This record gives sequence, structure tokens and C-alpha cells, in this order.
Amino acid sequence: MTLSPQIRDRVQDSFARQGMMATLGARLVDLGPGLCRIAAPITPAVSQQHGFAHAGLAFALGDSAAGYAALTLMPPGAEVLTVEMKINLLRPAAGVDLVASGQVLRAGARLTVVRAEVQARAGDGTERLVAVLQGTMIPADAG
Amino acid sequence: MTLSPQIRDRVQDSFARQGMMATLGARLVDLGPGLCRIAAPITPAVSQQHGFAHAGLAFALGDSAAGYAALTLMPPGAEVLTVEMKINLLRPAAGVDLVASGQVLRAGARLTVVRAEVQARAGDGTERLVAVLQGTMIPADAG
Amino acid sequence: MTLSPQIRDRVQDSFARQGMMATLGARLVDLGPGLCRIAAPITPAVSQQHGFAHAGLAFALGDSAAGYAALTLMPPGAEVLTVEMKINLLRPAAGVDLVASGQVLRAGARLTVVRAEVQARAGDGTERLVAVLQGTMIPADAG
Amino acid sequence: MTLSPQIRDRVQDSFARQGMMATLGARLVDLGPGLCRIAAPITPAVSQQHGFAHAGLAFALGDSAAGYAALTLMPPGAEVLTVEMKINLLRPAAGVDLVASGQVLRAGARLTVVRAEVQARAGDGTERLVAVLQGTMIPADAG
Repeated sequence: MTLSPQIRDRVQDSFARQGMMATLGARLVDLGPGLCRIAAPITPAVSQQHGFAHAGLAFALGDSAAGYAALTLMPPGAEVLTVEMKINLLRPAAGVDLVASGQVLRAGARLTVVRAEVQARAGDGTERLVAVLQGTMIPADAG
Repeated sequence: MTLSPQIRDRVQDSFARQGMMATLGARLVDLGPGLCRIAAPITPAVSQQHGFAHAGLAFALGDSAAGYAALTLMPPGAEVLTVEMKINLLRPAAGVDLVASGQVLRAGARLTVVRAEVQARAGDGTERLVAVLQGTMIPADAG
Repeated sequence: MTLSPQIRDRVQDSFARQGMMATLGARLVDLGPGLCRIAAPITPAVSQQHGFAHAGLAFALGDSAAGYAALTLMPPGAEVLTVEMKINLLRPAAGVDLVASGQVLRAGARLTVVRAEVQARAGDGTERLVAVLQGTMIPADAG
Repeated sequence: MTLSPQIRDRVQDSFARQGMMATLGARLVDLGPGLCRIAAPITPAVSQQHGFAHAGLAFALGDSAAGYAALTLMPPGAEVLTVEMKINLLRPAAGVDLVASGQVLRAGARLTVVRAEVQARAGDGTERLVAVLQGTMIPADAG
């Protein structure tokens, strides 16, 4: 199963309108049916007090990856909103990039249950799991 | 009960080292024992695709307010880390500012349970509750 | 604002059909608009391995109290289902009874955001907060 | 990697002391390093108001499976307590049995992050995912 060009365009347009994603330097790196991957560099501009990536960065990337994974399975014309999201932080997020992978666990008529994993990628390409997210998305009118 | 100058300095120093808070334009607006309030402007730089504040902004402010509320009750020399945090988004975050108020529900020997509420403040000063957070903080060595 | 007899009947009928509430010895002790309180005894039948009340008891009471709080604000004929719920356990639940108080934070057209607090009540009537819950309810057809 | 007899005994002893597990008719059906599976019958005694398994049953099984998965990786003499747990309910839990599978995502020095999935098993053996849980466990003195 592959993604239709219409759905791909819809996700890319929505992503491009998210000022927060630009502010965080985030880029959409992969997209498939019920799947989305978003990456962003770990820089001083998104750090917490110890110099690691802020929990807010891991959350914003994981939440967006999960939301766009959900959007790929929603009816044409829909937009997506986060109902709720929970994040567990597993270890300090040190490295070059954070990479969030969102997936759909259950696409229901009214609600979509999603999960995301956030990896910290070092300069040598090795990845370590730094956060996991679990939450709920809902379709919204695109207006 | 008031906050000692040492604890106030500790929180303000930590806040100032958070690059993410500067990037989001966040400022520490209130601090007391087990309480912290952080505000940030709602601008296109922190928006989602409909122009409202991104869930990641509400999360970052709420998480930080809750974390610093916890830090005010931790032993001298401690820093604070988020173990996990859950956010429910109640309505679109439209307005001039987001204001997050963090409070401590239970300061245990090993873990601190926290809550935060995030209000969207309109130009006329009226506030609407847009998000609630509930989570766990842990002390970390300040290093 | 008081509760109509119709809504009170609806909640009591629903509660009476929950086999789990009978199994746990739970009783509906208070009900108002957007509010519900449920209590159950702490006995060996609902203990965890140290003899305290099981997290599952605190969850079941808190979830049900929150759900029925939501149901009091839903349209006639609706039933209520839990979308998701998060619990933080603050201290061991020792005592005679657990008492869960559910409240509505936001009753939306599609979803209701709820919170619950669970107190452990000792033989002398003193109460200690042992758990807090935050979650989402959705109306379901009563069928 | 297999489980030592000592750890297996520790988990089975702890499980046997949980009155709640007996009340729910739950049985420990599988155990490995960082893994635990617990099942229980769906009966009127554990139903919600529509006759499906109560969210409290899915929670109690998932929480216990996740907790014992964590305990298999904790130091000798430790017991395990739930810090917090979040459950998303994906669809009504109809069938003969609920089967919860817990796994460890990260066993840290202080905290263990866990996940659980709960399947509803029909009479013909087919399984459907009805709930997912994500949470945090902490070691406790066995006393």
C-alpha cells in the first residue's frame, strides 16, 4: 500500500503551515500510510538547562509525527488535531538530531490512537531511543 | 511560606540556561513554594497549521512550569528532570499569550507529582483554559 | 444548578449494570452536575502484593467517577465510554475506604475532558490523596 | 537469555499475594526477561454497563503485566510499584478472555519504563487489540 499524491500533498501543505516546525528546524523525512517521520537538529536553541534537547522538542516532534501519521488515514479534506498525548522520557537526548517516528495503532471513525518513538542520532549515525509517546488524534475541518 | 533567595536564584539560573525557553519567547512570571508560572506570546513562529498555538508550545510551557514548581521543593543543589508528562488539549489556543501555571501535588523522597494548567490570554485580558498537564519530576544532580 | 431526576436515574441505572462496580464493592455516594463520587472498601480481595489497595482499584473507581461526572453533562440518551485515562499514584493506598471524586474540566461537543482524585480514608475519617487521574470521555449510544 | 528460577519464584510469589488478581480470575500465563503475560476471563463480574470488559479490568491486567515484566529485570529482593500508567482504549473488549502482554522499554537505575498491550480473545482463538498502556515502574523494598 502506498500513499496517494493527494494525501502526500495534504500532509506537506499542513506541515509547511506549522510555524513551530520551522522554528524548531524540523523536516518531514518519511511518509507512508499510517506512518510519518520528522527530524530536527539538537542545537542550543532547543536545549534544556543541561544542554540536552528539551522535553518540549521531543514532544513537538513526536506529537507532529503521530498526528501526520493519523492524517494519512483520514478522509479527504480533513485536518488533524491532538486530543491528548503522553510522553515518557527514557534518557537524556544528546546527539546531532532527534528523529520522531509516528504510527497509527487504530484508526477509528471518530478517533485515531497513535504512538511515536523519538531517537537521538549521534554524529556516527547510531541511534538511541530517548522518548515514547502515546495519544489520540481527531479529524478537524480543514476550513 | 515564602521562597528563599537561594531557591529563587536556582530556578532563575536554570530557566536562563534553557535555550528552548528563549526560542519560544518564554518568561518566568511568578514563583513560589511549589508554584511556578511561565508565559509566552502566541506568534506565527509557534503556530500549528490553523494558526493557533502549537500543542508543543502548550506542552513546553506547562512542562517547564511544572518542573520548576517541583524544583522549588527539592534539596539544595538539585536540578530537575521530567520523567513523564501527559497533556490534554481542551480547545484551540487562540489569543495573545499562553500562560502556564505549574503546581506540586506531592513532593516525595524520590519523585514529585505535578500538574499544570495552560490558559490562553486574549488582548482584553480574559483567559480561557486550553490545556491541562499531569506528570512526574525527578531530581537530577546539578553537576 | 442541580441534577434532573432523569439524569440521576440514568447514572444510577448505568452504575447498577456495571458488574465490576459490584465486584469491587463500590457504591455511588454523591452526584451533581459535572461531579461524581464513588467509594469502595479496601479489603484483601482488592489488594496488591503489599496489602495496600491495588492500583487497579484506584483506577477503576477514579475512571468510573470521572465517567459518570461526564455523563451528567451529556445529552439525554447518551452513554459514556472512556477514551483514555492516566493515573499517577502518589502514595500507598492504606486505610478503610478509597473515595474517588470525578469532575468535568471541559464538556465539548465531541469529547469531555475529566479529572479525578482518589483519597484513602482511615478509620478515624482522615483522608490522604493517593492518586490523581486525567482523561477523556466520549458519548456512546445507549443502544 | 532465560529467567532464573529465583526471579520466576519472586514474581509468582508476588502475583499470588495480589488479592485483586484472584478476584479478577487472573492467571500468569507467560514470563521471560522483561516480559510478562497475564490473562483473565471476561465475565459479568468484570463488565461495564454495556456488558463488555470494564476499562478497570484492562487496566489492572495491563498494569500488572507491565509491572511484573519490570520486576524480572530488577535487583534481587526488590518489589515493584506503579508510579504512573496511561491507558488508551481502542475498541470494546468483547470475547472470552483478556490477555495483557507487558514489556520493558527501558530499565534504568531508578525507574523502569514499560508498555503493555491488551488483546480480547474470542472463542475461536482470534485476538483483537483493545487497549495499550504506557507507564513507569519503580523498585520498592520487599520488606
